[in-house]
Amino acid sequence: MTETAKPILGITMGDPAGVGPEIAVMALAQKEVYQICRPVVIGDANVIERAAGIAAPDLMVRRISAMASAKFDFKTLDVIDLRNVDVARFQVGEISAMAGNAAFEYVRRAIDLAQTQQIDAIVTNPIHKEALNLAGHHFAGHTEILAHYTHSKNVALLLAHGNLRVIHVSTHVPLREACDLVKKDRILQVIRILDDACRRFGLTSPQIGVAGLNPHASDGGLFGHEEADEILPAVQAARADGLDVEGPMPPDTLFAKAQGGFYDGVVAMYHDQGHVAFKLQTFTFDENRRVEGIRGVNITLGLPIIRTSVVHGTAFDIAWQGIANPATLIEAIEYAARMAAHKKGA
Amino acid sequence: MTETAKPILGITMGDPAGVGPEIAVMALAQKEVYQICRPVVIGDANVIERAAGIAAPDLMVRRISAMASAKFDFKTLDVIDLRNVDVARFQVGEISAMAGNAAFEYVRRAIDLAQTQQIDAIVTNPIHKEALNLAGHHFAGHTEILAHYTHSKNVALLLAHGNLRVIHVSTHVPLREACDLVKKDRILQVIRILDDACRRFGLTSPQIGVAGLNPHASDGGLFGHEEADEILPAVQAARADGLDVEGPMPPDTLFAKAQGGFYDGVVAMYHDQGHVAFKLQTFTFDENRRVEGIRGVNITLGLPIIRTSVVHGTAFDIAWQGIANPATLIEAIEYAARMAAHKKGA
Repeated sequence: MTETAKPILGITMGDPAGVGPEIAVMALAQKEVYQICRPVVIGDANVIERAAGIAAPDLMVRRISAMASAKFDFKTLDVIDLRNVDVARFQVGEISAMAGNAAFEYVRRAIDLAQTQQIDAIVTNPIHKEALNLAGHHFAGHTEILAHYTHSKNVALLLAHGNLRVIHVSTHVPLREACDLVKKDRILQVIRILDDACRRFGLTSPQIGVAGLNPHASDGGLFGHEEADEILPAVQAARADGLDVEGPMPPDTLFAKAQGGFYDGVVAMYHDQGHVAFKLQTFTFDENRRVEGIRGVNITLGLPIIRTSVVHGTAFDIAWQGIANPATLIEAIEYAARMAAHKKGA
Repeated sequence: MTETAKPILGITMGDPAGVGPEIAVMALAQKEVYQICRPVVIGDANVIERAAGIAAPDLMVRRISAMASAKFDFKTLDVIDLRNVDVARFQVGEISAMAGNAAFEYVRRAIDLAQTQQIDAIVTNPIHKEALNLAGHHFAGHTEILAHYTHSKNVALLLAHGNLRVIHVSTHVPLREACDLVKKDRILQVIRILDDACRRFGLTSPQIGVAGLNPHASDGGLFGHEEADEILPAVQAARADGLDVEGPMPPDTLFAKAQGGFYDGVVAMYHDQGHVAFKLQTFTFDENRRVEGIRGVNITLGLPIIRTSVVHGTAFDIAWQGIANPATLIEAIEYAARMAAHKKGA
């Protein structure tokens, strides 16, 4: 790929007290990353330098204030420096308003840069909800910030790793409310968003499986009515549009089938239907019951901009020890690069 | 183990038109099975002989009418012969009242034999709900038959394979109703049943993880109240009884942790919370998108008798071709033998 054909990715640093800075420098010290994109970090250059000191000692930092100054040289990391962390004052692994505000500002800047086409996609590192709120930014997380500032009403969360790509009809609501949100229009919307996303991932004729809400997808109406009233009509409408969609399927075998490669994407009716399956496939533990590895990428669909993310949180308990694993950040970078390249090609 | 120390297991043949007969003869042609138990099949000897013809040609059949005649000789399978299948008339892979009635009668006989201590445990092969109902037996499945004839009110379904042992607060009800069934008393009952079962599996100090109902176990009340109102009080009551119980835990990571060996058993709040996780770990598919393998065992707890089962259905589409896999029947036999041996030892 020629240098200018590579998409420009803005990678937010995340909460300075968490694992974001160290996984960012670990990922961006890898040659493979520069082969697929032109990355910049949006963060605090002092923090990034310090993180490089413990996790990527060969990496140099170039402090820039605008994208025009970015050079994208491997081994010399461009950092859009917001100078918003007092390194003397911030505490590793602690919730603070300063850290919460800093993390928020990286996301805001990333949104501005994406909206003005100075970057082709945003890749986010973890922020901490409480720190965010302490700083007076009353959002539940990245998704809500992104939706708010891009005026997006119909966002949907996709989790992806290997064969498993799961989009969610709803996420952070009580399970009873999630049942109420199983409505034909929303399901159809989510099917369309998933089909479109799969095409942007390079899957030319996406096959989509749609879960039921109830056990055995209600077993013909024995255990619930949402399959007949809402889900089947949405599937039929999507098929009438020419999409390759199957469902509603019994949830318990659908995810096993998706993992086995039956579907390019799956529609989950609520948060844990998708998340239980996804995390079982992507979280591993060592014999000391510690997290050994986390894989996968979290993608917000339905925005006017491309945004991918790591799938874990700030992990304050292991932050700044140089032991965090950048694997999911690298997956997030790969997905963002692929989606942005598709957009540039289109 | 001396011969008489081995538990006697009654293995029902299941619906004759399904995979039950063939996986029964496949499993019982294995020496290892006779090393841990004394098995008899409760079924139709003509059908079993025919199944042996296609799936276990070296196996002889001994027709008996009562347990007193059982000899438990490896290679000569004892079959309690209910003579209730007209072999000339029954159709492989078809739903019929004759097959449904036959399958029902094997279960009834197994219950009688277990209640009169002539067998130490029941291991069931699949029956077909529609066939059962066509025959005038109006039950949803084995669990309901067993609960009815043993007058058991508080049964619970456990799925087990490897590290993952998942008990369910509710099963075959609409998801909205499942939310209503998340009640302290039922949860505490299920925790106790699981703790007791783990001890019968030979786990001397069971560690139990209890799932939340809502995303992130409600994240401190942000997404629902059942965690605070019902689940936490049940966990606290169980702890006050001396049980080693943790929860409510965010469902999405709980199952990944259980798979990683953090817990001996897990309490799922509804059918798919447990089943999505379990089937993802136990169902595999080949490159032609066909089921390659199914693992695991289904155990009905809360009965006065021991009952384990395969985790799949009658699989009419592949029945009587000799290609069904007896792996989950063998796991069900192993679990039944272990539980029965524990009971004999106790």
